[in-house]
Amino acid sequence: MDTVHHIDALRAQLQVWRREGARIALTPTMGNLHAGHLRLVEAARRRADRVVASVFVNPLQFGPNEDFDRYPRTLDADADKLAGAGCDLLFAPSVAEMYPHGRDGFTVISVPRYADLLEGAFRPGHFDGVATVVNILLTLVAPDVALFGEKDYQQLLVIRQMARDLHMPVEIVGVPTEREADGLALSSRNQYLLPAERAQAAMLYAALQRVGEALRAGRRDYAALCATEIERLGNAGFRPQYLTVRRPDLSEPDAADREFRILLAAFLGKTRLIDNIGLITETV
Amino acid sequence: MDTVHHIDALRAQLQVWRREGARIALTPTMGNLHAGHLRLVEAARRRADRVVASVFVNPLQFGPNEDFDRYPRTLDADADKLAGAGCDLLFAPSVAEMYPHGRDGFTVISVPRYADLLEGAFRPGHFDGVATVVNILLTLVAPDVALFGEKDYQQLLVIRQMARDLHMPVEIVGVPTEREADGLALSSRNQYLLPAERAQAAMLYAALQRVGEALRAGRRDYAALCATEIERLGNAGFRPQYLTVRRPDLSEPDAADREFRILLAAFLGKTRLIDNIGLITETV
Repeated sequence: MDTVHHIDALRAQLQVWRREGARIALTPTMGNLHAGHLRLVEAARRRADRVVASVFVNPLQFGPNEDFDRYPRTLDADADKLAGAGCDLLFAPSVAEMYPHGRDGFTVISVPRYADLLEGAFRPGHFDGVATVVNILLTLVAPDVALFGEKDYQQLLVIRQMARDLHMPVEIVGVPTEREADGLALSSRNQYLLPAERAQAAMLYAALQRVGEALRAGRRDYAALCATEIERLGNAGFRPQYLTVRRPDLSEPDAADREFRILLAAFLGKTRLIDNIGLITETV
Repeated sequence: MDTVHHIDALRAQLQVWRREGARIALTPTMGNLHAGHLRLVEAARRRADRVVASVFVNPLQFGPNEDFDRYPRTLDADADKLAGAGCDLLFAPSVAEMYPHGRDGFTVISVPRYADLLEGAFRPGHFDGVATVVNILLTLVAPDVALFGEKDYQQLLVIRQMARDLHMPVEIVGVPTEREADGLALSSRNQYLLPAERAQAAMLYAALQRVGEALRAGRRDYAALCATEIERLGNAGFRPQYLTVRRPDLSEPDAADREFRILLAAFLGKTRLIDNIGLITETV
């Protein structure tokens, strides 16, 4: 696997593959790769002849008080893992390569339907930064298919709508969340957790599961179900930001709905964690 | 020249040309073509093997009280003119073809540097609509070069920055404004003018010329120069919205500048007209 840091080198390799008629997949990441990312690469291999991964910690999608500076950068280890998972090319640009004219007054892509909702409410501007950088990566690589983890479910919806609205000729694929044995969703931010916090963190998935079971059992008192779990998490030392039952498109369900996405965000100590599950109930 | 109304047919023709190795130019228009548009096509022919023109009156770039409904639609005449000018393909999609999922919550592309300035101040959201539809057209056609009239100078800057920021692989070219014998800039909206208004409308270009002459003569009292012309236009029955001396990037010049763009917008009766000229002075 080659690693390229410059757009010219990326384009040169892609041109060779396109002339060969290869179908190309892209898996954008922020690096610090774990098994969840490698699942993206494996899913990409099943859908394309050539897999490009990008590693870019995008300053546009971090808020002023977020963890851009301390976000873990582990490019050498990432390259080894990607090569092992069958990735064909790693694109790892610098900030200057992606934003050569600076970020002041930079073009913004926004998907208003999701921009201010849930994650967007707690991370103003976050999804604009995500949509903008993913648009650039999709333009640079022009893949046939691009894969994103369902762990960032709202991000997946933002990207899917952006690609659809802007007629980008790419298929956007969501890949199920990879979990630790105790249910904790894999995330680069898990390594911020102190040992005692790590032991507790699986409570988040347990909370999602309990809400899911209640929905399967026919309950539709969404607000009460969520309030119970928010209280439980609060009592256990989490600072929950939201825990909510939504339709798959993140609109509010009514009593007749059968298909759901349950999503949460909570601080544990200084670490902000998110998770979500989807389910379809057999009856209302 | 073929006319296609659907994206699939557009893509099929483009694929044939790309396999032939043809260099492709795009000239996006809102139709109701005049000699200024045909100059774009001629300039496109000099820069590419195949020229695609689009005719699409884009609802996203019209304000609620603007002239979207009455904007002149003259597709048959447009097709004849384009064929005569050497255009190879006309893409004339419906609103439903461009926005198949509706425009509610639609993805927005914004270039903050220019969004609220001059035209942007008087037409809120206008440049977001322009940037978004031009992004889509550039994505659909993937031209090597795209040409836009300097008559819409601020639009040209918006599109150029969007393409640059988003790393779109296209060259953006501005084509000088085409004028009537008396200096009036060609515009589809000129046909809204009553005969007496049409006779008067050339005063706009005369005002730009006088400011330009004063700059060439060494004057740098921009505000006073513009105030004189705004007053003169007001006395003649125009309702000027702005008349301003700027740098080519639309920032405010200081006394040391030598390169300028002079821009104006004014209502004459019910018709809103814009115009601009660029100049470089020999000395400060």
